[in-house]
Amino acid sequence: MAITRYILQIHCPDQKGLIAGTTQVLAKAGANIIDLTQHTAKDIGTFFLRAVFECEPEAAEEVSRHLESIGPHLSLTWKLHDTTKVKRLAIFVSKTDHCLYDLLLKHRDGDLPCEFSCIVSNHTELGPVGGTFGVPFYYVPSTQEKSVSENRFREIIQETKTDGIILARYMQILSAAFTEEFKYKVVNIHHGFLPAFKGAKPYHQAWHKGVKIIGATAHFATEDLDQGPIICQDVQRVPETASIDELVELGKDIEKRTLSTAVKLWLEHRVFVYEGRTFIL
Amino acid sequence: MAITRYILQIHCPDQKGLIAGTTQVLAKAGANIIDLTQHTAKDIGTFFLRAVFECEPEAAEEVSRHLESIGPHLSLTWKLHDTTKVKRLAIFVSKTDHCLYDLLLKHRDGDLPCEFSCIVSNHTELGPVGGTFGVPFYYVPSTQEKSVSENRFREIIQETKTDGIILARYMQILSAAFTEEFKYKVVNIHHGFLPAFKGAKPYHQAWHKGVKIIGATAHFATEDLDQGPIICQDVQRVPETASIDELVELGKDIEKRTLSTAVKLWLEHRVFVYEGRTFIL
Amino acid sequence: MAITRYILQIHCPDQKGLIAGTTQVLAKAGANIIDLTQHTAKDIGTFFLRAVFECEPEAAEEVSRHLESIGPHLSLTWKLHDTTKVKRLAIFVSKTDHCLYDLLLKHRDGDLPCEFSCIVSNHTELGPVGGTFGVPFYYVPSTQEKSVSENRFREIIQETKTDGIILARYMQILSAAFTEEFKYKVVNIHHGFLPAFKGAKPYHQAWHKGVKIIGATAHFATEDLDQGPIICQDVQRVPETASIDELVELGKDIEKRTLSTAVKLWLEHRVFVYEGRTFIL
Amino acid sequence: MAITRYILQIHCPDQKGLIAGTTQVLAKAGANIIDLTQHTAKDIGTFFLRAVFECEPEAAEEVSRHLESIGPHLSLTWKLHDTTKVKRLAIFVSKTDHCLYDLLLKHRDGDLPCEFSCIVSNHTELGPVGGTFGVPFYYVPSTQEKSVSENRFREIIQETKTDGIILARYMQILSAAFTEEFKYKVVNIHHGFLPAFKGAKPYHQAWHKGVKIIGATAHFATEDLDQGPIICQDVQRVPETASIDELVELGKDIEKRTLSTAVKLWLEHRVFVYEGRTFIL
Repeated sequence: MAITRYILQIHCPDQKGLIAGTTQVLAKAGANIIDLTQHTAKDIGTFFLRAVFECEPEAAEEVSRHLESIGPHLSLTWKLHDTTKVKRLAIFVSKTDHCLYDLLLKHRDGDLPCEFSCIVSNHTELGPVGGTFGVPFYYVPSTQEKSVSENRFREIIQETKTDGIILARYMQILSAAFTEEFKYKVVNIHHGFLPAFKGAKPYHQAWHKGVKIIGATAHFATEDLDQGPIICQDVQRVPETASIDELVELGKDIEKRTLSTAVKLWLEHRVFVYEGRTFIL
Repeated sequence: MAITRYILQIHCPDQKGLIAGTTQVLAKAGANIIDLTQHTAKDIGTFFLRAVFECEPEAAEEVSRHLESIGPHLSLTWKLHDTTKVKRLAIFVSKTDHCLYDLLLKHRDGDLPCEFSCIVSNHTELGPVGGTFGVPFYYVPSTQEKSVSENRFREIIQETKTDGIILARYMQILSAAFTEEFKYKVVNIHHGFLPAFKGAKPYHQAWHKGVKIIGATAHFATEDLDQGPIICQDVQRVPETASIDELVELGKDIEKRTLSTAVKLWLEHRVFVYEGRTFIL
Repeated sequence: MAITRYILQIHCPDQKGLIAGTTQVLAKAGANIIDLTQHTAKDIGTFFLRAVFECEPEAAEEVSRHLESIGPHLSLTWKLHDTTKVKRLAIFVSKTDHCLYDLLLKHRDGDLPCEFSCIVSNHTELGPVGGTFGVPFYYVPSTQEKSVSENRFREIIQETKTDGIILARYMQILSAAFTEEFKYKVVNIHHGFLPAFKGAKPYHQAWHKGVKIIGATAHFATEDLDQGPIICQDVQRVPETASIDELVELGKDIEKRTLSTAVKLWLEHRVFVYEGRTFIL
Repeated sequence: MAITRYILQIHCPDQKGLIAGTTQVLAKAGANIIDLTQHTAKDIGTFFLRAVFECEPEAAEEVSRHLESIGPHLSLTWKLHDTTKVKRLAIFVSKTDHCLYDLLLKHRDGDLPCEFSCIVSNHTELGPVGGTFGVPFYYVPSTQEKSVSENRFREIIQETKTDGIILARYMQILSAAFTEEFKYKVVNIHHGFLPAFKGAKPYHQAWHKGVKIIGATAHFATEDLDQGPIICQDVQRVPETASIDELVELGKDIEKRTLSTAVKLWLEHRVFVYEGRTFIL
């Protein structure tokens, strides 16, 4: 049988012996641990562990069974990811393309371990980009009822076997029902340094406040769009003489690298969500 | 008569010929312009100019007279600073001393062109630091009525010929009457990246929100303490494994360098306040 | 006649009255100064000035004549740029496309005030990118004699009316004759933080040295390729666990934003070269 | 017996089962693993592990015996640190005190888990600082033969039970014999971004080269002073108008925070030296 690479994510209340216990489960199944990161957030008494290991699929099943049996006893929350099952992601865009291109180019460079199942847009302008990179493009106008659009999204997701969504400057708000249905499966880029500048036109807000540093925030989309758990943030110093338009332009570089980095962390199963925030291991 | 260095600050509605006009005023008076920075904030149609020049005191008086005569016509707001009249600043502290030391050491290195008139504290612990650096120390307990304390501040300010105040992690809130009286003469360091984390314990807020970057903000104190015009900000990436205590410790480096930098910008007359924000030239 | 925007660059030995003198020349010609930045590098006693102004072409000619007449007296080096005469730039690439895409996308966003006259490559792979963005593509193999290639470059430059060249990860070394002929007209991106990691494979060098921060450098190409005057640099912290390949991947983001920023500064006539280094105003 | 906290550092050629094996050794001895970080540098096939654990001293001895027995077989390099045995560090200074103060203040805040055994200087100016913070001050003039001074250092080290040395802007070069004798026990702050600006006056070099970003480097002192393994680096953007003196002043903030951070990493046993570079876990 083929040796396969797995990634295990665990979090649970802190207690003695967690690392030794986990590594013993893996050792007993004959798994070879490639990489192990662990962190105990003492302020909330919670333990997080990410282990990358290699073994045959049968051994991975043995690990699963073992974790299932001890899980309830230790209040474990765990997930075992088979890295050969590559995630298929949809990219939602409006008209702005800097984030879209950055994702497509980094993917082509082999830097994002996923497949792009489709590009979905409420405008037609970026259709040709899909063509250039061989990703199917779906036009779903936002002029209709939101529920109609979102039902269309559900169909597309099914047709294209999509596992998750990247909102790459998709300028529409998703309904609470939709974000709840795809909880922690939708990554958004907010073009502001959250929680500082929620809502629309964050660069305008920032300029009028005279902040000296601007930023962007990649986070999971939740019902309250600007409040979802933060995955990645980046910042840049503002030239004192910058106009609002120049802030917007400056922001694009930050947005695209922040979104790509967040998607990478997510695909590598480094992101843990716990009590409204993430821990990245 | 002695050649003296002056700094001129002007802001006004944008209009044709402002730079040429200003430099002609200076040229006519025989002033030698050392440094001239100008910026037009197009988003609000406002012109800002800072000029450093050298001349005899009489020539500076001529410049003043000239600006007074043309000022109303051009809606000029202007100020002429004589750099030989060194500002005397009071440092307000509580028990935390990292900002205090940073100010005192940088001052001793010649990096802050001011005199420290006194250290004022609501605790006695930092008294000896004043002794070491030869700065008079005043203990004004915060257990009494705020108005009593603030009257004592007014006395100290008068006695020590103080021109401005640095709140170097002074953990008490000043009254609206006091901040209004000393408008744009009190610089505060807020131990958070405003406007993201207003109020108390910003590092706790930041940790629980899971932000990936923390910062500090130096700003003028106003009635609403965390809303005053921002002079300087700095940030630092948060290690994913940092505890709240470690964030607080990390924050100290950012706080002290942000406060010292802001004080320096202020002393060099680079800070313009306009419509609730600063422009730094 | 049409009001036109001009940019004036001056540098000369520092002396009294330079700002007033310059602004008077402009005022006398009826020019409206939009923006003026000036800096005196005291360590070398040199004055730099950049002025943006608007006037009719005839007035600009008057300014030129005036500067010509006073220039020798003040040892002025000066240049007057007509912003309506947009620079035409050639982009030289090999196979790597992250810098190329960043330039093309930012140009399309209106962020780079130039025209792209052509893409030149020693490989054919990036031909279709030229097609997508409507920029003529020229294939000039590097397997032939360098002088043959460079003669072909000269022909292309002439045919396409090219004013300058961007080496956007063009992995070939230009001859001393060529860089001398196009002095300060060729901008290169060096994928390392110069002068730290000259030569080939800077990320490999950086990794083996264990540096904690990597960077990229955009500079004018000179005979000694890695020694040309630096226009722009940027850096990023190295994750301690990064492999050499991950450094290379990290570097791409730094390279592309550093190169685009440098090109923008150059096109805005903000770059002064003096005694082997630049001053950016 | 008292529960004690230990830190184990291991590095060795990469091979299967290293994490599981190590955690089993610790589990068998009854140790409670608090924190475990591990990294395999694939480019050189080397495994690094740092484990923090708690147990009784006898159990720690058992761990040691076990590692000794398996060590040769696995080509392990390992070290077990008892965190109750606090390192005693000497601080070497000349006349500049920004790094000295930063270390003393952070130590007093509880941020540096060590004791300062003494301050050694080739000047007398900073003697009073030692007095203020209760650290013995030794004056060892550098006007005498270097071997005489270094013998005096050896005496002081013995008298004050010193385990390591911090060169906090000590402007003298140590002999090869001395740095070899105290290999990886002397941390130096180089006031430049190595390997870019070796040797004297790095800020002057940086200014004349026109670099846009300056930095500082904390590293282990070795025979070739500017080539020792880098522990920590930090950088800051250079204002285009900065003079050489302003660069020097800017550099001080970078130097002090870089040195303090490096000392902290070292004291927490996070620093591994391997093949001329460090890995920080």
